Amino acid sequence: MSTIRACSRPLRPGSFASSTFRTSTSIQRSGPRKYGTAAASNVVNIVEVGPRDGLQNEKGVIPVSVKSELINRLVDAGALLVEAGSFVSPKWVPQMAGTGEVLQGIRQKPGVHFPVLVPNQKGLENLLELLSTHSNSPVPLTDEIAIFAAASDAFTKANLNLATIAESLARLEPVARAALDKGLRVRGYVSVVVHCPFSGKVDPKVVKDVTAALRNMGCYEVSLGDTVGRARPHEVAEVLEEVKKVVPVNMLAGHFHDTFGTAVANVMTALSHGIRTIDASVGGLGGCPYSPGATGNVATEDVLYALKDSEYSVAGGVNGTIDLDKMVNIGWWISEQLGRESISRAGRGVKARREREKKQ
Amino acid sequence: MSTIRACSRPLRPGSFASSTFRTSTSIQRSGPRKYGTAAASNVVNIVEVGPRDGLQNEKGVIPVSVKSELINRLVDAGALLVEAGSFVSPKWVPQMAGTGEVLQGIRQKPGVHFPVLVPNQKGLENLLELLSTHSNSPVPLTDEIAIFAAASDAFTKANLNLATIAESLARLEPVARAALDKGLRVRGYVSVVVHCPFSGKVDPKVVKDVTAALRNMGCYEVSLGDTVGRARPHEVAEVLEEVKKVVPVNMLAGHFHDTFGTAVANVMTALSHGIRTIDASVGGLGGCPYSPGATGNVATEDVLYALKDSEYSVAGGVNGTIDLDKMVNIGWWISEQLGRESISRAGRGVKARREREKKQ
Repeated sequence: MSTIRACSRPLRPGSFASSTFRTSTSIQRSGPRKYGTAAASNVVNIVEVGPRDGLQNEKGVIPVSVKSELINRLVDAGALLVEAGSFVSPKWVPQMAGTGEVLQGIRQKPGVHFPVLVPNQKGLENLLELLSTHSNSPVPLTDEIAIFAAASDAFTKANLNLATIAESLARLEPVARAALDKGLRVRGYVSVVVHCPFSGKVDPKVVKDVTAALRNMGCYEVSLGDTVGRARPHEVAEVLEEVKKVVPVNMLAGHFHDTFGTAVANVMTALSHGIRTIDASVGGLGGCPYSPGATGNVATEDVLYALKDSEYSVAGGVNGTIDLDKMVNIGWWISEQLGRESISRAGRGVKARREREKKQ
Repeated sequence: MSTIRACSRPLRPGSFASSTFRTSTSIQRSGPRKYGTAAASNVVNIVEVGPRDGLQNEKGVIPVSVKSELINRLVDAGALLVEAGSFVSPKWVPQMAGTGEVLQGIRQKPGVHFPVLVPNQKGLENLLELLSTHSNSPVPLTDEIAIFAAASDAFTKANLNLATIAESLARLEPVARAALDKGLRVRGYVSVVVHCPFSGKVDPKVVKDVTAALRNMGCYEVSLGDTVGRARPHEVAEVLEEVKKVVPVNMLAGHFHDTFGTAVANVMTALSHGIRTIDASVGGLGGCPYSPGATGNVATEDVLYALKDSEYSVAGGVNGTIDLDKMVNIGWWISEQLGRESISRAGRGVKARREREKKQ
């Protein structure tokens, strides 16, 4: 579960009077995407969130150099969009300390994006300061931020210490506007789109309104997150159909955690409802196998495995796709850095098959 | 992976000359089913295979009394069809020793069936001998057997030490006929319906022919097994559509292992193609969490969780369904008997939620 906490008080408390969250900016799209998401095609984009949403939720803290190495390996395996970290106080999220240094350790590659999560104005200021000190570089350290809101007041309160969804959106709006003004792309997240751990089942209409608000702030894409990993396929279908009423499906992504074992099934359901961008985490990072109820993201390897040779193809930088075998290796490698085994089922399956073949 | 090995030589070697396996008996159905599988309805039947296919593939061997207790608990949780064990030489499968005693330790309940796997004539003779010694009981110890064939010669050779699929079917036919003559119901399994670990991708047409042969022997239902747990949803769809050409979908079941993380997605795909009977294993029995590439059956809890509150309902004996919470408890209990944690994701998720709620 994402547990970024804002460490300052709200600047402009909003109200949650109507069912629609209005924002003053209304930008349809922050420039052309470098990778396709047309739902008419069967090309699936993977947003690799292991280095951010994954590592952030691991108990272990790994060094900056290993985080940069992880991202470089992911790009070598074909990942085109890798969330590199977040600009949040290390007091709240020690796992994300040093994201600036991580960005400086990344080997840039044309067509590959490294969004960083920016929870608030302060985070954006820190990022912009870093970028300005590298303004002479031929390629910027990053050209994209991610911002997030939740679909329940209770989660907003617990996660951001803000009273309402509307208040959190009001705080995000100037962040998005400032980022867009600086030429950055902005990606949005909506947390707890199906179940809130504090207030139960979430109303799809609220998800729709929050998604529309993020889109209206200028997010080129909004990722809908089953943050607690409790969603079932029919619930995913329900929320997607509701959100699609106001936001085109090619501006949506699916983000599923695997707490109750439904993540791959939810991915397949999302694809069948037109979604073409899936967030996934190498090695299933974000959950610990020794902790019952671990809430890791769906493993990138599991998604790649499920889609291989199917009607869908995955976009990527290695022969036009993401290399499953390389991704399996990275899943095992980063899990070893955390002192454990990969929890990706496909990662375990592939490794076992290799070991059998070696013996023969 | 099912690894029952026949311990006697073939009685009547068959030939595999045509694409269709012909058998001399051709019985459409072995009497009325006690539970519904009409694909027109959305009622899903679970065949609980934990005590047989699950335990058989675990490293640990548990006592007969614990096996009976497991089955009694499963029935108390609402299971209507529980595979109780197999009549196979304990020399080959020590985990299945004492199935006769297990059956005698079961509390019989109207409408609940306890099929036992019978690999060959010898196994059937042993079962019939046991049943005859209890012929005065008001309720028979069991009224159903399961027989199995594979969809590749290579798997047939490795698993049964028979040269061809046709040879294995020729040996099964008299077993099925004798069982039917004694008034037993016969359920069929086809192993490796998508991938064979020895010969690779399996031709759906072969699966179709083996399934038809088992049906023609009088099996009231044939369960199609992704024995190695490598199948992807689109492959499940492909094989089902092929088999449905010759066997009505309400005589088919889906049996998926979770080696590569696709089992729940495969269950959902099978249901969307009309399948209404799913084999599942409490606690995900059959895979070991400390062994990379563990090949457990899909966990019963994971299936129950994924279907809860959906367009499907699960048939069962507790308020008309199978109780998820009780099943979670059984998954943890039997896993503890094996000295480990439950590997059902839903089982782990439910337990973690309970622990959180207890703390609040």
